[in-house]
Amino acid sequence: MDSNYLRNLLGRLINGQMDIDTVLEKLKNLPFEDMGYAKLDHHRNLRNGFPEVVFCEGKTCSQVAEIVSRLAKCNTNVLATRAGIDVYDTVKQECPRAQYHQLARCITIENDTIHKYKSPILVISAGTADLPAAEEAAVTAEIMGGTVTRLYDVGVAGIHRLFSHHELIRKAAVIIVVAGMEGALASVVAGLVDVPVIAVPTSIGYGASFGGLAALLAMLNSCASGIAVVNIDNGFGAAAMAISIVRLAERN
Amino acid sequence: MDSNYLRNLLGRLINGQMDIDTVLEKLKNLPFEDMGYAKLDHHRNLRNGFPEVVFCEGKTCSQVAEIVSRLAKCNTNVLATRAGIDVYDTVKQECPRAQYHQLARCITIENDTIHKYKSPILVISAGTADLPAAEEAAVTAEIMGGTVTRLYDVGVAGIHRLFSHHELIRKAAVIIVVAGMEGALASVVAGLVDVPVIAVPTSIGYGASFGGLAALLAMLNSCASGIAVVNIDNGFGAAAMAISIVRLAERN
Amino acid sequence: MDSNYLRNLLGRLINGQMDIDTVLEKLKNLPFEDMGYAKLDHHRNLRNGFPEVVFCEGKTCSQVAEIVSRLAKCNTNVLATRAGIDVYDTVKQECPRAQYHQLARCITIENDTIHKYKSPILVISAGTADLPAAEEAAVTAEIMGGTVTRLYDVGVAGIHRLFSHHELIRKAAVIIVVAGMEGALASVVAGLVDVPVIAVPTSIGYGASFGGLAALLAMLNSCASGIAVVNIDNGFGAAAMAISIVRLAERN
Amino acid sequence: MDSNYLRNLLGRLINGQMDIDTVLEKLKNLPFEDMGYAKLDHHRNLRNGFPEVVFCEGKTCSQVAEIVSRLAKCNTNVLATRAGIDVYDTVKQECPRAQYHQLARCITIENDTIHKYKSPILVISAGTADLPAAEEAAVTAEIMGGTVTRLYDVGVAGIHRLFSHHELIRKAAVIIVVAGMEGALASVVAGLVDVPVIAVPTSIGYGASFGGLAALLAMLNSCASGIAVVNIDNGFGAAAMAISIVRLAERN
Amino acid sequence: MDSNYLRNLLGRLINGQMDIDTVLEKLKNLPFEDMGYAKLDHHRNLRNGFPEVVFCEGKTCSQVAEIVSRLAKCNTNVLATRAGIDVYDTVKQECPRAQYHQLARCITIENDTIHKYKSPILVISAGTADLPAAEEAAVTAEIMGGTVTRLYDVGVAGIHRLFSHHELIRKAAVIIVVAGMEGALASVVAGLVDVPVIAVPTSIGYGASFGGLAALLAMLNSCASGIAVVNIDNGFGAAAMAISIVRLAERN
Amino acid sequence: MDSNYLRNLLGRLINGQMDIDTVLEKLKNLPFEDMGYAKLDHHRNLRNGFPEVVFCEGKTCSQVAEIVSRLAKCNTNVLATRAGIDVYDTVKQECPRAQYHQLARCITIENDTIHKYKSPILVISAGTADLPAAEEAAVTAEIMGGTVTRLYDVGVAGIHRLFSHHELIRKAAVIIVVAGMEGALASVVAGLVDVPVIAVPTSIGYGASFGGLAALLAMLNSCASGIAVVNIDNGFGAAAMAISIVRLAERN
Amino acid sequence: MDSNYLRNLLGRLINGQMDIDTVLEKLKNLPFEDMGYAKLDHHRNLRNGFPEVVFCEGKTCSQVAEIVSRLAKCNTNVLATRAGIDVYDTVKQECPRAQYHQLARCITIENDTIHKYKSPILVISAGTADLPAAEEAAVTAEIMGGTVTRLYDVGVAGIHRLFSHHELIRKAAVIIVVAGMEGALASVVAGLVDVPVIAVPTSIGYGASFGGLAALLAMLNSCASGIAVVNIDNGFGAAAMAISIVRLAERN
Amino acid sequence: MDSNYLRNLLGRLINGQMDIDTVLEKLKNLPFEDMGYAKLDHHRNLRNGFPEVVFCEGKTCSQVAEIVSRLAKCNTNVLATRAGIDVYDTVKQECPRAQYHQLARCITIENDTIHKYKSPILVISAGTADLPAAEEAAVTAEIMGGTVTRLYDVGVAGIHRLFSHHELIRKAAVIIVVAGMEGALASVVAGLVDVPVIAVPTSIGYGASFGGLAALLAMLNSCASGIAVVNIDNGFGAAAMAISIVRLAERN
Repeated sequence: MDSNYLRNLLGRLINGQMDIDTVLEKLKNLPFEDMGYAKLDHHRNLRNGFPEVVFCEGKTCSQVAEIVSRLAKCNTNVLATRAGIDVYDTVKQECPRAQYHQLARCITIENDTIHKYKSPILVISAGTADLPAAEEAAVTAEIMGGTVTRLYDVGVAGIHRLFSHHELIRKAAVIIVVAGMEGALASVVAGLVDVPVIAVPTSIGYGASFGGLAALLAMLNSCASGIAVVNIDNGFGAAAMAISIVRLAERN
Repeated sequence: MDSNYLRNLLGRLINGQMDIDTVLEKLKNLPFEDMGYAKLDHHRNLRNGFPEVVFCEGKTCSQVAEIVSRLAKCNTNVLATRAGIDVYDTVKQECPRAQYHQLARCITIENDTIHKYKSPILVISAGTADLPAAEEAAVTAEIMGGTVTRLYDVGVAGIHRLFSHHELIRKAAVIIVVAGMEGALASVVAGLVDVPVIAVPTSIGYGASFGGLAALLAMLNSCASGIAVVNIDNGFGAAAMAISIVRLAERN
Repeated sequence: MDSNYLRNLLGRLINGQMDIDTVLEKLKNLPFEDMGYAKLDHHRNLRNGFPEVVFCEGKTCSQVAEIVSRLAKCNTNVLATRAGIDVYDTVKQECPRAQYHQLARCITIENDTIHKYKSPILVISAGTADLPAAEEAAVTAEIMGGTVTRLYDVGVAGIHRLFSHHELIRKAAVIIVVAGMEGALASVVAGLVDVPVIAVPTSIGYGASFGGLAALLAMLNSCASGIAVVNIDNGFGAAAMAISIVRLAERN
Repeated sequence: MDSNYLRNLLGRLINGQMDIDTVLEKLKNLPFEDMGYAKLDHHRNLRNGFPEVVFCEGKTCSQVAEIVSRLAKCNTNVLATRAGIDVYDTVKQECPRAQYHQLARCITIENDTIHKYKSPILVISAGTADLPAAEEAAVTAEIMGGTVTRLYDVGVAGIHRLFSHHELIRKAAVIIVVAGMEGALASVVAGLVDVPVIAVPTSIGYGASFGGLAALLAMLNSCASGIAVVNIDNGFGAAAMAISIVRLAERN
Repeated sequence: MDSNYLRNLLGRLINGQMDIDTVLEKLKNLPFEDMGYAKLDHHRNLRNGFPEVVFCEGKTCSQVAEIVSRLAKCNTNVLATRAGIDVYDTVKQECPRAQYHQLARCITIENDTIHKYKSPILVISAGTADLPAAEEAAVTAEIMGGTVTRLYDVGVAGIHRLFSHHELIRKAAVIIVVAGMEGALASVVAGLVDVPVIAVPTSIGYGASFGGLAALLAMLNSCASGIAVVNIDNGFGAAAMAISIVRLAERN
Repeated sequence: MDSNYLRNLLGRLINGQMDIDTVLEKLKNLPFEDMGYAKLDHHRNLRNGFPEVVFCEGKTCSQVAEIVSRLAKCNTNVLATRAGIDVYDTVKQECPRAQYHQLARCITIENDTIHKYKSPILVISAGTADLPAAEEAAVTAEIMGGTVTRLYDVGVAGIHRLFSHHELIRKAAVIIVVAGMEGALASVVAGLVDVPVIAVPTSIGYGASFGGLAALLAMLNSCASGIAVVNIDNGFGAAAMAISIVRLAERN
Repeated sequence: MDSNYLRNLLGRLINGQMDIDTVLEKLKNLPFEDMGYAKLDHHRNLRNGFPEVVFCEGKTCSQVAEIVSRLAKCNTNVLATRAGIDVYDTVKQECPRAQYHQLARCITIENDTIHKYKSPILVISAGTADLPAAEEAAVTAEIMGGTVTRLYDVGVAGIHRLFSHHELIRKAAVIIVVAGMEGALASVVAGLVDVPVIAVPTSIGYGASFGGLAALLAMLNSCASGIAVVNIDNGFGAAAMAISIVRLAERN
Repeated sequence: MDSNYLRNLLGRLINGQMDIDTVLEKLKNLPFEDMGYAKLDHHRNLRNGFPEVVFCEGKTCSQVAEIVSRLAKCNTNVLATRAGIDVYDTVKQECPRAQYHQLARCITIENDTIHKYKSPILVISAGTADLPAAEEAAVTAEIMGGTVTRLYDVGVAGIHRLFSHHELIRKAAVIIVVAGMEGALASVVAGLVDVPVIAVPTSIGYGASFGGLAALLAMLNSCASGIAVVNIDNGFGAAAMAISIVRLAERN
């Protein structure tokens, strides 16, 4: 709620500059956000440096470049996901500070200090083909302030690779598991730990993978507990969930 | 790892009661869990009073009663989900302390002090028909130590009902949103807050709801961020995820 | 917006009974609906006699009876859909004025004068097996004030039956087409008229009907225009849409 | 029915120029449309200026150009949907008055006065990616005589954006809601108003959006009433439905 | 077209008993079927004794009994499909000539001489569990005049059983293949013959049979030619198609 | 069975040139087709001029050209389906008599007299976009000896167009109905006639058409009888079925 | 091939009791199986004692009892799957030697010595709810001669339980993995061994398990190799595959 | 388990160079694979020459080339699947011994002697379009040591082609059946033999084949026994399963 505006309004009522009916009318027509419903933010002060996000898919290079450079001028941090190299090339001309994360297909621009969360976020991926979604998660979490460790290529077909990193797993505060094909890695990891596990099915696979449906269903039906799932290939969403968790953990 | 056993083994090696080859052989044949891989627990000490869980669906009354009473004898807390009243009646005879939560279709037995997490967990449901899943989440979270507030019957068709409770929403540390039909409530809530939102699609609906598929897909495709999804009607899973989050938040 | 409450508040501000900060705080905590966002009603005055609706599926007889009798005491009209005869029997004891519509599986209670809309709503059904959904639409439309004509059993396998009623079709202001199996009737009717056609797929059929999916997809893919679709077996929803249309047509 | 032809036929029977058997035979072989079944039009007089519609998908540029220019020569208005810029370039050469609506991917040619309907049609879209379907709806409604207002980019993840335009929503006679991903916007809007809401799911999204299926199912399962759905991305169909409604509303 | 009525009408016009406008009006309001569009029958004379068909599913015993006895009073033959033994018991009381075909779940009543088609219709089924659909096809074809041979339990897992009956297969004019599970029998049979093959997938199977979907898809994708498919378990539809073929073959 | 070979074998047995064991062994190892099971042809004599068929999809231009020219050298008729213009160009160089049917995407080569069937086969299509499948059916039927009439662009949205051709429909011996989108045309046509109707769903449509699934399901669930269905876009299969029917009808 | 019959036939040819044409005709009409194509058995001698199998689902108690007792009279072993206790009670009266395996829902009758295969078949199941399918596999394998070891309740949510049995796993010749929900166990096991793994998805689960589809898809998409899948809940099929493998392994 | 390391550790304990707590700590932190759980190999000695496998889909030419040449330098055999000709061209420059199998889209490099299994593996395919998957299976099996025979183009539409090769079928130890469209060949073959049959559905087909789903479901629902299924187009997986079987058969 914009207290100043309201305070001014009520002041004019007291002063007799406005009568009750005029004030009532004005209250009735206040834009919604002015009433305080815009965003029920818990810790807006913690959110300094939180990036603005642009989803590039279905937008042209110049459209993205325009949006990004407009945002960048506000001295805010920017994250653009699903961005091809051609999108980056266009953005780069406008915003020289833009950085490209090729595997993640993300562009980041750091204009503002990022509030750092110390709780370790571990991103685990099953196969090399899952790296784009895993990196989208990692890059997103980092620009949002996360402390990210990557543990890649530890699929269940060679489960000893996973177990050899048990120290890393033991230390994580939140774990993002990225896996395509049968998505079994999420259940195995969630069975090993007590911290929140966020599962990202990927569209990696062919035939009866049906574009990631097999992994998605497997993860939703996990027999392990302490696990929740985001959309297929949605590394961004997993990172946003992870950040909301570590933010909560560190807000006290 | 069973340190005592190992310490004893190594002691006997030093004492000359065993030679190196015998010890090597014994190490090689140690059951897996004895090697410390059983559960990479972070905070086992925090887990006092954590319940054993029995999923009753597909088990007979006497099977459940036997399992539950065996667990109850260990002075552990017990949670039995998807339990009909007939299951409860049978369990009650063996375990007089068993309590039945009719809407949730859960049985709980408190034998041990529950470690309480103070971070408020808010369970929101869209319609009265979603109550069984919502209550399964609430009862599960409570027996696991959660501090739960319920906010029911606030579906998006009358979205003002949701907004009138903005203070409740503002205070929550984790929010579980339970909704069937089109599942839109999850997106609306996640758009209002910055804390983790766990979405539970329910099988409520008919026709093109396809047993909860409509709500599930809607929640997976949420345009809001900071949201993750569990299986259809999986109130238990949502609560387990919520507890893993508040446990993390309070472990420091 | 509850003007009186606000007017009183502002009055106390002017009188000095409250200071600005107190008023600001009270404004901030006003329930949402008091701010006027509850329902952006266009013609609330037209809605006298509009029924309260209870969806009975998944509720026990006594639950429905309790809800219905509570509503009935408010002298409002009541419509309960998906109600079995046993539900009616229970309701009847509390509310002697309750009437049962067996085919429609609806209970209605008329406590208040219904505002009548004159624009004819025509409900067409393909086969006798589609009658439950068709009657749910007809009964719903009537208790909401609609003037309903029924044209049943005119499926496309004997399309001459449809054409023999062309005068009825010609006169309709809105047409609800209820059809299962291949759902072709909706396209044929919409191809004949220029008024809005609301298509209700039904779950009638077997095998590759997949519970009404075949009819639903057919209707969504209609090559005719001026047609929109509601959920499988959702006679209620079709009627609500039809009423919203005739209300609009007659509001001037 | 072509009265003149029939009148002439019967006249020749009376005059003895034809005998009964010849007339019977001729009646039997009358083309169907001559019998009056062609189109059971309600208000053909209201339809002056109503456009002919060409669906371009799957047709070559030259095919579309030929069809359109043939129609344009009849001094009728023309609407071509799903038309790429290359199609427009070809059409433009034949029909200099052709206009291209890039976002909507529509070509319009105004040769005749359009009958204007005053009832406001509001087109609401959730995200910028939904604009093509939203614009197809808006452009279609306009060439058919609709008075269209656009309210874009008001998705439920930031629901305050929607509420700040409540005056626009309050004034609408018919609302077309265009949304992809989880399609929740349709339920939220339909919960706010009493006028007919036509929901257009779009194919916007990825992964478990399954080409718009998620939004489609969500909209079909809406817990709000006064809502009906058209095919995925079918902006045209939504506009045709909206026009059929406002035509009805203004025919008196 | 009801020639007598029309002839009478035109006679009254000639006689001056009616004027042209009255006749025109009467022509305009003739029921559709009187105009000759009711049924474009090719060989109505061949259809003496063709049964009236009642689909019992979703109807109560008394409803079916009422319909059937009403039909039976017209001295027409009657076929009631999907009829349980209880339905038959009720029908039997009204219509003593009714016969029950238990496996086929059909009731037949022969009141009129059936026109016999000599072309042999062969009904082949894969397993014993497919018998209900196979018998529905056989009984339907017989009451419609077909000369039916049954060849049951010759699934592809023991393909020699099929081949030992090659003389039967060689002689058939039309073959109906009824198979559940993987539905492979249809392709094998169609690969052996040049006569029309009508494939009936059945809902026999479990798991990934998905209620007959597996067999349905297999049959639609048959690599053999001269094959077409009806709905899952639709023995009736297959027989109707077969009869339409032998009727054509014998109409000269 | 190759009688000469067997006769010779038995002759040598009688002559003492072979003993019983040798003959038994040779019988046991006879190739399958020599035993007469190769093809249980009914009327091989009727099949003179029947074409060899090549399905081009997934083959390169040169592969098709090689297969076709090899077949063409045998003085057999050839039909190549799903052939692009580039395939035709390659084939043409080898086989100057090859003809291309652009809409049907078929190549035909007539080297042999085609046995003509007089029973009229009517191919009806709903929209212009359905023409490729309709023409594949028509061209296939013609090269196989069918007498084909085409009735195109008579979809149910303007059902009078269909009815104006009732004479054509009345005369047909077999009808192939080709329709995409909601596929309603098949039911309407099958409701008008008693001859076999073969329904071809097409992949025409978008969104919830799901590549022809909507039309396929609609046709399988047709409430009309005397109808059977082939795979989506399978004009070839429908024609093969139609030919098998007219061949049967004319074999006496 | 029935050599005696053929030898006799050829003998009569040599003796002049039949002429060549008569013999040729008789050869042509020999039932198919007599020609040796009935079953291309590799090791019929190994198959002594192999059971006849009856699938009980969809058969009445008395039907099963009749089939089983007929088979039992032939001194063959019998396996009846999907048999309820009531089926067993009926069978037991006819065949006192019949044994019931309650969890497996199988009836077995041993009348003949079973050929024993020594290669160990290991049946692993994930949860107690998977036991019916696991036991169906175990009992089937045993009656077919398999040497079966059971390792139950070792799901991936507690993967240490699996690893503690590594010696059992190491020794297996073939492994059948039975798992519902997310089916991840199959991949984990197949990643540990080099012997053939047969995966049985079960219908255990709810919501997005879709009757076992989730587990089925997961297993088909396994990133491990040396794994193949059978139908949902098809313990019998897995055992039959396992036996075909150990038979092969021991045939030399 | 790395005995030397452990022996050394225990030696230092005895020698007093380490105390018990230090040794306990070190045991606890041993990498997983050192504990002997890495791979529970049965016959590692048999696996000399077993290839490393690279799945090329989704990798760039240079990525594949780098991985392959790195592997090739280890003197191991290499198999790269799903490799286009451009991938091969790049690999060839690094590894001159690389061979390309065009139909199979596989690259193989033989650096080491392959252990040969004598048991014949028969690869059967239904149509020419199924060759890529069939060849992937054949080439994979060969580089893994299999003795492979190919039997192609023997689909069930001309089942005599299959039967003429019964000797080949009779001799096979394992059979891989590769078929698209309706996938019926797998059932027919499995009905003829007692050896293990591995079914590979292919994505060949169109329309209701749904990318191989029809064949997959058919194979999973096979009424024959001794059959198991791999993913759509997964020739590699089928070969790996076949090799695991013949390895087992020959390990004694």
